[in-house]
Amino acid sequence: MAAELENDLFLRACFSQKTERTPVWLMRQAGRYLPEYRQTRAKAGSFLDLAKSPEYATEVTLQPIDRYGLDAAILFSDILTVPDAMGLGLTFDSGEGPRFLHPLSSEEDVKKLPVANMEQLRYVFDAVASISKALTSNGKQQVPLIGFTGSPWTLACYMIEGGGSKDFAKTKKMLYDRKDLIQKILDINVQSITEYLTLQADSGAQALMIFDTWGGLLTPSDYLEHSLAPMSAIISSIKSNPKYKDLPIILFTKGGGLWLSDIAQSGANVIGLDWTIELKRARQTINHASKNPIAIQGNLDPSILLANPAEIDARVMQLFQGLSTADVAGGNPLDGHIFNLGHGISQFTPPENVAVLVDAVKRYSTSFRASAQ
Amino acid sequence: MAAELENDLFLRACFSQKTERTPVWLMRQAGRYLPEYRQTRAKAGSFLDLAKSPEYATEVTLQPIDRYGLDAAILFSDILTVPDAMGLGLTFDSGEGPRFLHPLSSEEDVKKLPVANMEQLRYVFDAVASISKALTSNGKQQVPLIGFTGSPWTLACYMIEGGGSKDFAKTKKMLYDRKDLIQKILDINVQSITEYLTLQADSGAQALMIFDTWGGLLTPSDYLEHSLAPMSAIISSIKSNPKYKDLPIILFTKGGGLWLSDIAQSGANVIGLDWTIELKRARQTINHASKNPIAIQGNLDPSILLANPAEIDARVMQLFQGLSTADVAGGNPLDGHIFNLGHGISQFTPPENVAVLVDAVKRYSTSFRASAQ
Repeated sequence: MAAELENDLFLRACFSQKTERTPVWLMRQAGRYLPEYRQTRAKAGSFLDLAKSPEYATEVTLQPIDRYGLDAAILFSDILTVPDAMGLGLTFDSGEGPRFLHPLSSEEDVKKLPVANMEQLRYVFDAVASISKALTSNGKQQVPLIGFTGSPWTLACYMIEGGGSKDFAKTKKMLYDRKDLIQKILDINVQSITEYLTLQADSGAQALMIFDTWGGLLTPSDYLEHSLAPMSAIISSIKSNPKYKDLPIILFTKGGGLWLSDIAQSGANVIGLDWTIELKRARQTINHASKNPIAIQGNLDPSILLANPAEIDARVMQLFQGLSTADVAGGNPLDGHIFNLGHGISQFTPPENVAVLVDAVKRYSTSFRASAQ
Repeated sequence: MAAELENDLFLRACFSQKTERTPVWLMRQAGRYLPEYRQTRAKAGSFLDLAKSPEYATEVTLQPIDRYGLDAAILFSDILTVPDAMGLGLTFDSGEGPRFLHPLSSEEDVKKLPVANMEQLRYVFDAVASISKALTSNGKQQVPLIGFTGSPWTLACYMIEGGGSKDFAKTKKMLYDRKDLIQKILDINVQSITEYLTLQADSGAQALMIFDTWGGLLTPSDYLEHSLAPMSAIISSIKSNPKYKDLPIILFTKGGGLWLSDIAQSGANVIGLDWTIELKRARQTINHASKNPIAIQGNLDPSILLANPAEIDARVMQLFQGLSTADVAGGNPLDGHIFNLGHGISQFTPPENVAVLVDAVKRYSTSFRASAQ
C-alpha cells in the first residue's frame, strides 16, 4: 500500500509542484472503446458483473495503462455504487444507462433511507487492493491509483429520478418543494461517501475524485448549498483524518465553470474542468480566488477524439499554447495541470486516436513548458 | 402592422429604457401545460398541424396573454421550421421530440443543401399577420409580438443528427473533422434565417429572438466561430435594413453564461440568460463589456414552477432583490430587464402556479424598483 511510485508526475501535479511534463489520464479510460475491454467484458457478463469482480476490474483498469503509458490508473467502478449499498438496486439498461430498481419515490422512502452498508461495497475495496498490487512489481508501483464516487447531489438525482433524465425534474421538484427531504438524502450521502472514500484510501487509493455530473443543473445558490457544501463537508472530514490530510482530492462539477471561485474554497486540491472554459481563464480565476495552490484537470472535448490525428494534434497544441499564456505570478503556468478530457471518453473513439492524443500531450506539454519559463 | 401599442413595457425594456415595472413573458408560454391549448391541439391534430395552421396558431398564441396578462406574445411555431423548408422533412415523435426524415448524412447531402424556400414558410408569415391582427382592436395592439427561429448552429445540430441527442456527437465529429462542410451548412442557415426573420418582421413581428439551444455544448473558440459569429452576421444583416435598424433582437444561448462579454458584442439588444448565472453578475459583466445599453432577459429555473406558491413567491423576490444590488452607474438596476424563465416552461407546470409567478413578478419588480432608486 505504501509502495514507492515509479511515476509520480500525477501526484506532484495534484500538489501544484513543478513537473517536467504534464501528466495525462482520461476519464473512463478503461471502457468500451478498447477491444481488450470488450474481450474481458464478454468473459465477465454484464457491466456490473465486471465492476463487482475484483479480478476483472483489475484486468480492465490496467489495460489503458499498458496500452498508452498513462500517468494514473483509476479504479474501474461506477459513480452509483453507494446508493446500491443503501438497497436501491443498481442495474444497467441495455443502452448502459444506470437505473435504480427502488428509487426514492415517497416521503416514506426517504425517511427510511439507511446509510450505505460498507460490507456490500467490499468488492470495491477488494478491487482497489487488487489493482494496487497488480500495478506493483519489485516494491515499486507503476502509477498512482485514483478512487472515486459520485457527489452527494449527483447521487440524489439518480436516487430520486430512478435513472438518467434531461432535466431531473422530479429531483428539482423535491428540492424546491421539500427541501427537508433533499437535506435528509444529502446528509446520508455525505456520511456514506465519507466512509466509502476513506475505505478506498485504506485499501490503497492514492488520490480520490468526486464526480459531480449534475451540479451544473442548479442555480448558483442551490449549487452552493446542495452540491458544493456537501462535497466540501466530505473533503473536510477525510482530511481531518491525520492519515489522509495530504491525500489529494479532485472535485469535478460538469458545467461548473461559472462557479470556480466558490469551488476553489472547497478544500479540493484539484478542480476538474469541462471544455466550456479556457484553461487560462480557469487557472487565473482559481489563482485569484485562493491563496493555496490549487491544480486544474482537463479539459479537451472528448468529441475531438472522433476527428482525425492532425486535428487532435492541433487542438492539444492550442490547449497548451493557451495555458502557457496564463498570468500566474512566479511559477510556470503549465505546472499544476493534469491533462484530461472534459468528460468521459466516448465508446466510439478509435483507440489509435488516443495514442495520438497521449503523444501530443507529452510532446507539447514539454515544449510549451520550456518556452513559458 | 404599425398599430400603436397598448402595453409597450416589453419594447421599452428591450431598449433599456426606464419602466414602472418589469415586463414578463415565458418561453413556451403557449403549450401543453394549458388546458385550453390541449383543447385546440385536439381539434388541430398533430403539433405540426397546429403550428402550420395560422388560425389555430393564432388561437394558442393568445391563450396565455388572455389568461395571465403577459407583456408580450410570441409566435406559436418551432425553432426548426427553416430546415423543414430546405426539404429535410420535420416530424415530431410521440414524445414530441423533433426529427428530420432526411438528415444531412453524407457530404453529398451537404453539397446539395438549398437555401430554405420562403414560399414553404408562408404559413409562418400568415400566422404572424393573423396574430398581429387578433391582438389589435380599435387600432391599438394589446402587446408586442415576438418572432423567432433556432440559431444557425442549433439548426445544424438537428440537421446533422436528425433529432435530439445527449452530446450531438455526429455534429461535433463533422465540426472537428470536416469544418468545410459545417461552414457550408452554417452559411446556408445564415442566409435562410436572415430572410426568414426579415419576412417575419415584414409580417408584423415587433421583436425577434434567436434560440441558440445547443451553443453551450461548444468549446469557447468554437462557440465564437460557429455559433456567435453566424448569429452576429444575421443581426447585422437585419439591422442594415433601414426599416429594421431599431427592431429589437434577443439572443439566447443556453449555457452561455461564461461568454457574456463576447455575446455583448453581437449587436443583440437583449441577451437571454438561463438560471445558472445570477442576474446581478450577468448585468455587471454585460455592462462592463459594452458601451451600448444591452438588456437582459431571464432567468428563473422553470422547475421552480413545479413547487408551491410560497416557494415561487420567495424565489421571485430573491431574483429581484439580487438584481437590485447590481452596480450600474446611474440608472435603476431593474430597468433593462425582461422577466422570463431560464428555459421553456415544463408541460407538467400547474397553470395556477404561473398566475402566482406573474403576480409576484409584477409586485416585486415594482417594490424593488422603488427601493433601488
